Amino acid sequence: LIKEYEAGGDEYIPTLGIPDEEFATVKKLITKEEIRVVTLAKLKLRHDMCLWDIGAGSGSVSIEADHLLPNGRIFAVERNPQCVEFIKENLSKFNARHVTLVEGDAPGCLENLPDPDRVFIGGSGGNLWDILDTVDGRLAAEGRVVINAVTLDTLTAACEFFENAGYQLEVTTVNIARTRPLSDYKIFESYNPVYIIAAVKE
Amino acid sequence: LIKEYEAGGDEYIPTLGIPDEEFATVKKLITKEEIRVVTLAKLKLRHDMCLWDIGAGSGSVSIEADHLLPNGRIFAVERNPQCVEFIKENLSKFNARHVTLVEGDAPGCLENLPDPDRVFIGGSGGNLWDILDTVDGRLAAEGRVVINAVTLDTLTAACEFFENAGYQLEVTTVNIARTRPLSDYKIFESYNPVYIIAAVKE
Amino acid sequence: LIKEYEAGGDEYIPTLGIPDEEFATVKKLITKEEIRVVTLAKLKLRHDMCLWDIGAGSGSVSIEADHLLPNGRIFAVERNPQCVEFIKENLSKFNARHVTLVEGDAPGCLENLPDPDRVFIGGSGGNLWDILDTVDGRLAAEGRVVINAVTLDTLTAACEFFENAGYQLEVTTVNIARTRPLSDYKIFESYNPVYIIAAVKE
Amino acid sequence: LIKEYEAGGDEYIPTLGIPDEEFATVKKLITKEEIRVVTLAKLKLRHDMCLWDIGAGSGSVSIEADHLLPNGRIFAVERNPQCVEFIKENLSKFNARHVTLVEGDAPGCLENLPDPDRVFIGGSGGNLWDILDTVDGRLAAEGRVVINAVTLDTLTAACEFFENAGYQLEVTTVNIARTRPLSDYKIFESYNPVYIIAAVKE
Repeated sequence: LIKEYEAGGDEYIPTLGIPDEEFATVKKLITKEEIRVVTLAKLKLRHDMCLWDIGAGSGSVSIEADHLLPNGRIFAVERNPQCVEFIKENLSKFNARHVTLVEGDAPGCLENLPDPDRVFIGGSGGNLWDILDTVDGRLAAEGRVVINAVTLDTLTAACEFFENAGYQLEVTTVNIARTRPLSDYKIFESYNPVYIIAAVKE
Repeated sequence: LIKEYEAGGDEYIPTLGIPDEEFATVKKLITKEEIRVVTLAKLKLRHDMCLWDIGAGSGSVSIEADHLLPNGRIFAVERNPQCVEFIKENLSKFNARHVTLVEGDAPGCLENLPDPDRVFIGGSGGNLWDILDTVDGRLAAEGRVVINAVTLDTLTAACEFFENAGYQLEVTTVNIARTRPLSDYKIFESYNPVYIIAAVKE
Repeated sequence: LIKEYEAGGDEYIPTLGIPDEEFATVKKLITKEEIRVVTLAKLKLRHDMCLWDIGAGSGSVSIEADHLLPNGRIFAVERNPQCVEFIKENLSKFNARHVTLVEGDAPGCLENLPDPDRVFIGGSGGNLWDILDTVDGRLAAEGRVVINAVTLDTLTAACEFFENAGYQLEVTTVNIARTRPLSDYKIFESYNPVYIIAAVKE
Repeated sequence: LIKEYEAGGDEYIPTLGIPDEEFATVKKLITKEEIRVVTLAKLKLRHDMCLWDIGAGSGSVSIEADHLLPNGRIFAVERNPQCVEFIKENLSKFNARHVTLVEGDAPGCLENLPDPDRVFIGGSGGNLWDILDTVDGRLAAEGRVVINAVTLDTLTAACEFFENAGYQLEVTTVNIARTRPLSDYKIFESYNPVYIIAAVKE
């Protein structure tokens, strides 16, 4: 359809809203385009911030954030070896200059990173509470943590953590359905709902 | 690549996801934060494009697009005098350098603008068909039109136009609900659903 | 879980909300439990009415309506031979006494049925306009037609018909997501959205 | 099987889906028509059951259940004096013969009621945990509790209770938007989302 990413540079990449199918990924696991940009909006990024992207998956959030942090730094943290390969491939394809890949288990592998202004948690591998504990100790004042939850269990645990820790909390549920461009009939197909938790350190 | 809001106080404005309450506007009419960023994602902006924002309202879409078109041009078209004042105020507050305000009725006032690569229609003042006709005549090859519809009437009319004109069409419905940050209980409050129509000229 | 439909009678069948998995059906095609009861609510059935269920599929709407029309009549119209077998099996299992199966193509096969007070159209096999034309000619004054649309095409066509014919029109969109009872984590899974069109003859 | 509303004017009341505006109520607080019928479906009522409706509000759930429990008993429990008056008025208008009004605070006022097969909790007045504790002690084997939650707090607390108590749990989120029948344009207006928790005693 639209030729993008052709030449040796950024000029064909949209500055927001990279289509899901442009990423090397396991299709079912990618943060969908629409969810990704709402997530980025909730992060309230400023040009020179430090962002941790924990459970980066295919790196799609880090890569879209790259445009929004022209003077900042992004650390894409991932422990799954297959995902790590996807991230490498995608960082190269999209020429994401501010993103550093960090292989390993969170929270352990976060130790040597610079303190974050913003943290996105797309996956926690069962260590959500430990990760949040570490994040809370390192996050800058007025810092912001955003979590995408697809289970009620994660939603509940995250809200409990942030309320105990005195953060200001907003939960946004996003229900998206879309038609497929090339089908004869415009059937709406739903994504599963996502809960986007945004917590601000007071 | 992406410029920052520099002057007095503006340094705290995020590079995506400006909170609704930061805009001078009639509260009920603003394109909500979450809808705005999904709309921008659907526009698939590239750094040097020309965007028409027709029925710009408070100018919020143009202002968020300003970051995403560092080498581009944006024309915010609006006929309502009160909205025009809001746009002026917001352009000044957010220091949106690539946005030009165009006062007047579409499609008439579009005549002297440069041809667009991208067109967003947030409001059509009852002239949707005429506006689409004009846009279709001026839009670049592989250009893209995005319309936010809140009525079934607009959704139907827009789809009919684009199918007749041979565009490739995608419709995304967005249902958002969110909790209020400062209330004692986390009650989810819904926005009305929005249909985001994205049409690509073949 | 709960033993239902065991004995030779109605006593174990819930009087509303028969679980989807109790019906003989093609799983993807059944009108889901939640959608089915909202559809029945929109039909505004009274005890002695005549209901046409056009494109009855597995007969689930007719069978749930059976309880709500203790002195009425229901005609389940279906042309697909496999679906006809499902309906027979379900009518027998649920002992639906007021439901008559009508095999054949609508609108042709509607000719010999008594005039309806209520009509539900779950599927139209590409003949929506002809079916609506026939229904309109036969429907009682203050009668009511309910259509479940999953495509924008059906939604648009149905609305156009009813507006031309002078009906009062309401469209309800239903977005449902639910957790699976027996999984370890409560992941919300979405149904595709359904548009329930309710039209009242003036 | 299912009785009808007989007296003056009542013959026009449907056997399911009584319009919200037919109930004496505080408009914002009524369980909306669509939510009400999905709630009833989740209760899986059988003809001769005993239902407790705790926090009955305007009594709309009890009144719609009256049709579905032709040989059963319904206890509508409410402590707010204004709501009690609404319930009295509605029970009279709809001639709901199987519904008994119980004025007072739950769980205290539940003591003298017969044990329930089904329990619906529409409001808990801050005593959710105590009410669930009492309900758990009285509920029949294979009994079923349904709760409508509009806050994340209630959703979380209810899920925690049921998981601790070993119930099988399903959560259904319902997002409804509908057009207004008499407006010129078909604008979709959303209800706030409701979480319908259905728990089955093993």
